[in-house]
Amino acid sequence: MTLPTLQTVDVAAGGVTTARGFRAAGIHAGIKAKAGALDLALIVSDTPATAAAVFTTNKAQAAPVLVSREHLAHTGGVARAVVVNSGCANACTGDAGLADARTMAAETAALVGCAAEEVLVSSTGVIGVALKMDRLRAGLPQAHAALATDQGDKAARAIMTTDPFPKESAVTVTVGDRSFSIGGTAKGSGMIEPNMATMLGFVTTDAAVPKVLLDRVLREVVDDTFNAITVDGECSTNDCVMLLANGASGVAIDERTYDAFADGLRAVCLRLALGIVRGGEGATKLVTVTVNGAATPAEARIAAKAIANSLLVKTAIHGGDPNWGRLVAVSGRAGVAFDLSRAKVTIGPILLFKDGRPYDEAAPEAASYLKNDDISIAVDLGAGDASSTVWTCDLSADYVKINAEYRT
Amino acid sequence: MTLPTLQTVDVAAGGVTTARGFRAAGIHAGIKAKAGALDLALIVSDTPATAAAVFTTNKAQAAPVLVSREHLAHTGGVARAVVVNSGCANACTGDAGLADARTMAAETAALVGCAAEEVLVSSTGVIGVALKMDRLRAGLPQAHAALATDQGDKAARAIMTTDPFPKESAVTVTVGDRSFSIGGTAKGSGMIEPNMATMLGFVTTDAAVPKVLLDRVLREVVDDTFNAITVDGECSTNDCVMLLANGASGVAIDERTYDAFADGLRAVCLRLALGIVRGGEGATKLVTVTVNGAATPAEARIAAKAIANSLLVKTAIHGGDPNWGRLVAVSGRAGVAFDLSRAKVTIGPILLFKDGRPYDEAAPEAASYLKNDDISIAVDLGAGDASSTVWTCDLSADYVKINAEYRT
Repeated sequence: MTLPTLQTVDVAAGGVTTARGFRAAGIHAGIKAKAGALDLALIVSDTPATAAAVFTTNKAQAAPVLVSREHLAHTGGVARAVVVNSGCANACTGDAGLADARTMAAETAALVGCAAEEVLVSSTGVIGVALKMDRLRAGLPQAHAALATDQGDKAARAIMTTDPFPKESAVTVTVGDRSFSIGGTAKGSGMIEPNMATMLGFVTTDAAVPKVLLDRVLREVVDDTFNAITVDGECSTNDCVMLLANGASGVAIDERTYDAFADGLRAVCLRLALGIVRGGEGATKLVTVTVNGAATPAEARIAAKAIANSLLVKTAIHGGDPNWGRLVAVSGRAGVAFDLSRAKVTIGPILLFKDGRPYDEAAPEAASYLKNDDISIAVDLGAGDASSTVWTCDLSADYVKINAEYRT
Repeated sequence: MTLPTLQTVDVAAGGVTTARGFRAAGIHAGIKAKAGALDLALIVSDTPATAAAVFTTNKAQAAPVLVSREHLAHTGGVARAVVVNSGCANACTGDAGLADARTMAAETAALVGCAAEEVLVSSTGVIGVALKMDRLRAGLPQAHAALATDQGDKAARAIMTTDPFPKESAVTVTVGDRSFSIGGTAKGSGMIEPNMATMLGFVTTDAAVPKVLLDRVLREVVDDTFNAITVDGECSTNDCVMLLANGASGVAIDERTYDAFADGLRAVCLRLALGIVRGGEGATKLVTVTVNGAATPAEARIAAKAIANSLLVKTAIHGGDPNWGRLVAVSGRAGVAFDLSRAKVTIGPILLFKDGRPYDEAAPEAASYLKNDDISIAVDLGAGDASSTVWTCDLSADYVKINAEYRT
């Protein structure tokens, strides 16, 4: 058995068309009201790709989520294309919405020349509004005609709702003397218009990955990246991350090269996920929250999410206030093992609480550190040796203004 | 067995001294920096009272919480006095803080003429700062000298941190031809200064209530009132509700009159709890959130709390936006049984979503309703017949400004 002699991950510019054998397009179909706004994305693999996906755990699942699940179950995980519209979530739209999502897949399949079940569908935008099917139908042939290996950035823009910037990422992984690429795009939850809470991610690779490994690696990586970010603790009706592997690089992933693939995928997904946080509504700071000393990894994650979602913590960071008391109080109410006498709080490199007592003399230094755009905070629960890291943003008055804006 | 022939609950003006045999005081001891600000409250029963308390579930428990627990365990639930300071939480203060809380009880006991264990202590204010014991010691005799049956309002003011107004409530309950009173005061989590997240409630009654019933009724009522409110989903190191019953009315509560007592206590506690919500930071609206159609009462409460704590829901209400999509999305992610096809959303009396489809034609009427100061929203999960009601406030940009203010 030859183990890989070298594993390198190069972060490169690029996105969903960096991997060989993938083409993409992004066009204006007229689903968004704004003239010329890109709102229909198509990602096509030249050959059938192994496909894996992770969907929202929300029980109010949108029609495209239900249809994509059906399709993956039907094919056992094979896809040729992903079709995505923004401007309308096709959620809470009943049987008519399901029929629309199926039509969206079927018409894409007719253009691509594959079975309808080999098309995955995704929608993001306002909840409870029907898709404008005439515009979608008219747009699909345009999107298909525009497919090219240099149009990944257009696809990245076409999936945006109110994201302040497009998010793309790609890596090339070298294993021994061969290499493959992984690239993707994502959109976050910019809710300047109401109900646009969807987080979508689409990742392609030209490695060949057996279905069982593709499922495993996607779940593992999503847990460390997309599932480790939070802007406001919400989880939408349409969230999904899809991963297509077409094998065009000639590199086949197996148990020996699994870690190299996972590292590459993690790098791509983490960059996309952090882009979502940086683009969070009203966000001015990216905050890395690390919990150490937890009794179990699950408790570490629970405490880290509790801190990352705490309004008091997020507003304190926004105000540049090194308020360790709020970190202690949130840790204590998180419902996990916590020992105040052994707990520790640091903001950046600065220790503020340890051995049951504050180090308030360090507060001015910590306040100065909090002026940075990228902030790290860490809490040791004093209850074990498990850790977890999650990412969030601060909470600004702009978040409230954005989300309180009057819709009707 | 004679059942009570009549049970009436009269809502009256009053507070902790409405019940016979209780005196109170509120003075300025100098724990708060501001000159003349009341910061030390004393509530004394003329005779030993049966005592019950519910404390914070936060694992970072403040010294006064630990000491009051000890005292209740030691006496088996008997108390003569409650002493409370604002301006300092005496939390995260280690062994020195514990000693200070014990001293606070002992010196009060010496003045009142009872055992130290018959004094319950409570503190609220900044975390991680030592109590100014010299000022507290000097203040206690003043507070004791000021004790009177008409000073309940002073005590209500002395427990405030940054609450915008004091909260008092009292009722007289008539059972047959006899009557007893229940009255109380509470403070909420006004966090204009950092770390002041404490919710405190103190309730007195001149009914005689056996310890086992007092414990039962307090837990039952707190669950429906103080535990059913949320401003920002936080839970502090110092939260507690204490209930003292001294029997001065001559009415003894037993299983037959339990419900009358519970109704009276519920009326007092609900009014105090809603006062805390109305006084929440930046709050402009009181929001009643009812979840129906849940599989179990516990799931109903979980869903109601998820809705009440959702930033998207709270900002939509602040903006007057009848955004039923956010209510559906939060219900779907709350981790409880939820059937989208049977779910129902109403804002006030206005139906906005039912049978899997929106009623957007009613949106303007709902937007108009949302201009009220008191708002009701209801979600039917379509999964059973259990219900729960909780109360919250909207989320305004002022909340962020208040909590982001720079401390150091």
